[in-house]
Amino acid sequence: MPEFFNVLAPDDAIEVVRNRLTIQVETEVVDTADSLGRVTAESITSSEDLPAYPRSAMDGFSVRARDTFGATEGLPAYLEVVGDVPTGTVPDVTLAQGQAATAFTGGMLAGEADAVVMVENTQRVDGHTIEVVRPAAPGENVIQTGEDVVTGDPVLPAGHVLRPQDIGGLLALGIHRVSVARRPRVAIVSTGDEVVPPVETPLAGKIRDINTYTISALVERAGGLPAPIALVGDDFDEQRAAAVRGLAAADILVFSAGSSVSSRDMTASVIGSLGSPGVLVHGVSIKPGKPTVFGMVDGTAAFGLPGNPVSAMVVFDILVRPAIYWLSGCAEPPQRASVEARLLRDVPSQAGREDHIQVRLVTENGEVYADPILGKSNLIYTLVRSDGSVKVPLDRGGLYSGDRVTVRIW
Amino acid sequence: MPEFFNVLAPDDAIEVVRNRLTIQVETEVVDTADSLGRVTAESITSSEDLPAYPRSAMDGFSVRARDTFGATEGLPAYLEVVGDVPTGTVPDVTLAQGQAATAFTGGMLAGEADAVVMVENTQRVDGHTIEVVRPAAPGENVIQTGEDVVTGDPVLPAGHVLRPQDIGGLLALGIHRVSVARRPRVAIVSTGDEVVPPVETPLAGKIRDINTYTISALVERAGGLPAPIALVGDDFDEQRAAAVRGLAAADILVFSAGSSVSSRDMTASVIGSLGSPGVLVHGVSIKPGKPTVFGMVDGTAAFGLPGNPVSAMVVFDILVRPAIYWLSGCAEPPQRASVEARLLRDVPSQAGREDHIQVRLVTENGEVYADPILGKSNLIYTLVRSDGSVKVPLDRGGLYSGDRVTVRIW
Repeated sequence: MPEFFNVLAPDDAIEVVRNRLTIQVETEVVDTADSLGRVTAESITSSEDLPAYPRSAMDGFSVRARDTFGATEGLPAYLEVVGDVPTGTVPDVTLAQGQAATAFTGGMLAGEADAVVMVENTQRVDGHTIEVVRPAAPGENVIQTGEDVVTGDPVLPAGHVLRPQDIGGLLALGIHRVSVARRPRVAIVSTGDEVVPPVETPLAGKIRDINTYTISALVERAGGLPAPIALVGDDFDEQRAAAVRGLAAADILVFSAGSSVSSRDMTASVIGSLGSPGVLVHGVSIKPGKPTVFGMVDGTAAFGLPGNPVSAMVVFDILVRPAIYWLSGCAEPPQRASVEARLLRDVPSQAGREDHIQVRLVTENGEVYADPILGKSNLIYTLVRSDGSVKVPLDRGGLYSGDRVTVRIW
Repeated sequence: MPEFFNVLAPDDAIEVVRNRLTIQVETEVVDTADSLGRVTAESITSSEDLPAYPRSAMDGFSVRARDTFGATEGLPAYLEVVGDVPTGTVPDVTLAQGQAATAFTGGMLAGEADAVVMVENTQRVDGHTIEVVRPAAPGENVIQTGEDVVTGDPVLPAGHVLRPQDIGGLLALGIHRVSVARRPRVAIVSTGDEVVPPVETPLAGKIRDINTYTISALVERAGGLPAPIALVGDDFDEQRAAAVRGLAAADILVFSAGSSVSSRDMTASVIGSLGSPGVLVHGVSIKPGKPTVFGMVDGTAAFGLPGNPVSAMVVFDILVRPAIYWLSGCAEPPQRASVEARLLRDVPSQAGREDHIQVRLVTENGEVYADPILGKSNLIYTLVRSDGSVKVPLDRGGLYSGDRVTVRIW
């Protein structure tokens, strides 16, 4: 009986997948403005100073700091305002001793100026004279050339998932094209004699295929491109043919297995038949999700996810989501949202097994509670009704009501 | 001087925005399979039972539970296996007293069966007889009709952001089209005499426009459609003309203001000139982000974000992101990812002001620390180098090294 011949702890299964995924997808060059969520293919250094010139950080007056030394409310420094430097313009004025020029936030300083006095620390005496009531230190209220980034600075590493501010940071340096990993394509083969496409009305004994679509959405959310291949019955040849098509089209092959033991075993047999070295993980000590299969088929990762929707989603999150990032060259996938909460009920588990409990979040008197949802892993609405999941570690026999837990938001 | 004539606490500013956004965007009908991240326009109820028939939750034998009562290892119940019910098929066998039929996970039960005995609790005696060594309770290992969802059950409320499992839940019920809010369009007008498009090499005194692109990416991430309108100088008429175009094209108008006081005031004047009631918030007691403007222009929300990129991002997150969700009919925007950490350094603040401190996350010996990044709010790389931000509440004078803080991941 081949069922579960190589049950691994979840962390060990993750390590097997990580160690086997040594090849990354190719790269492509895209507009920086359109690169949200993409993964940088190489480290990026700056070929400019940012800012490129000293900028005023305040509205006020650019001054020679030494002209203000010792200034107080009682004994102010008097400076002659000899011009102004509007934002976006090059100064046409250079300061001599005792002179100042009007400065604007983001604008340049007058020639010879080395500090900016905030307008709040000055008083107008007349049309062309101000009193400065506080001394300015050299460099005060000035953003120096290269204060943000200096030419040659590394600005982003390879394998970085681009965020809105990264897009801004690259564009600020004039980097308007960026080399990123191509989105990994994930082929999805859904199986099971009882499964029909969701647009059909199932006859007695049949159910609608949903895993193709939940897995597609999960792939999309992880930055991959879902490629649904086929919905096939529990037939070895049909499944193998669909898998071959999937392997040709994609960087990762995902099987959604049927739920019976024979159907799960067929997934493993199909993966094993496709190439070398074949099945590497067959069974993971996790609930839900034990009947998980992972193999490598001549360099391509193939996952067999359990047919139950809750199991499929838990296993996807633990194994397939990171695999998509790893293939993109991102070593540490972005964190999913999480919330700290107090457990509302005891949750029994079993030492030696990692449990993922679905919970609903409830806020009462400002405190956030996690209410476990009791539901079988074959009920999709267990997931629909949940806000997130709580992990019961392998070495714990369960969690107690009142325990502080981290809820990972679905 | 109009600057900051109506400075509000951040929570009060949020309430002003929330109370004014009473109109929602129109709805549209999309394929459920393509609805990830969309917001439901109406509550959805089930018109089916799920599952539609009693399903076996295990591989084993469907039985009449009463035939197994009292069975033990020592005194097993002997049952005759009179047929099997393959997954996806309708049973052609009905059990009489003392009979059983092979059952598969997800499959139907034989006629008259009311429980399933796991294969692990049986022993084959011969080709057509099994021993059952444990009694089965009626309903055991059976998922009953409607156990997941009953006809008429509410399955999703209006204003719900659709997740992968929701897509699965709807498809399981045959709901393959869903009514959702149209994506809110957000017009972006970037301003400032010093700002040039990022593909240009800025002359002395100029800088590249980045806020158009960071704001576009933030809009996209919040489920909106960014509509960059124009990059205009600090000229009232030009800005007003761009704003009018933006209002015609979008559900929300966002100005990225210049950074000088006069430039910020111009944003407020432009918003005030466009329609009624005009500017409602001018200044928020937040750092960075004080020079924030919010107004309503004949029913359309208009935001003036500070020109500094860090300020713009902080204010977007607090005010514009929720506004996009509220316009879509979603009352509680999804949580951003967050991590609990220990602060690595004291962070001084000022009571009466809410500070948002950029931090980098550092993990040491399994403990996560938040290391504050000291950088001016006009330096975009303060954001690029940060993993998230920590809020110093309005009523606190600062935070101490070692404090437990929640880091919201950017």
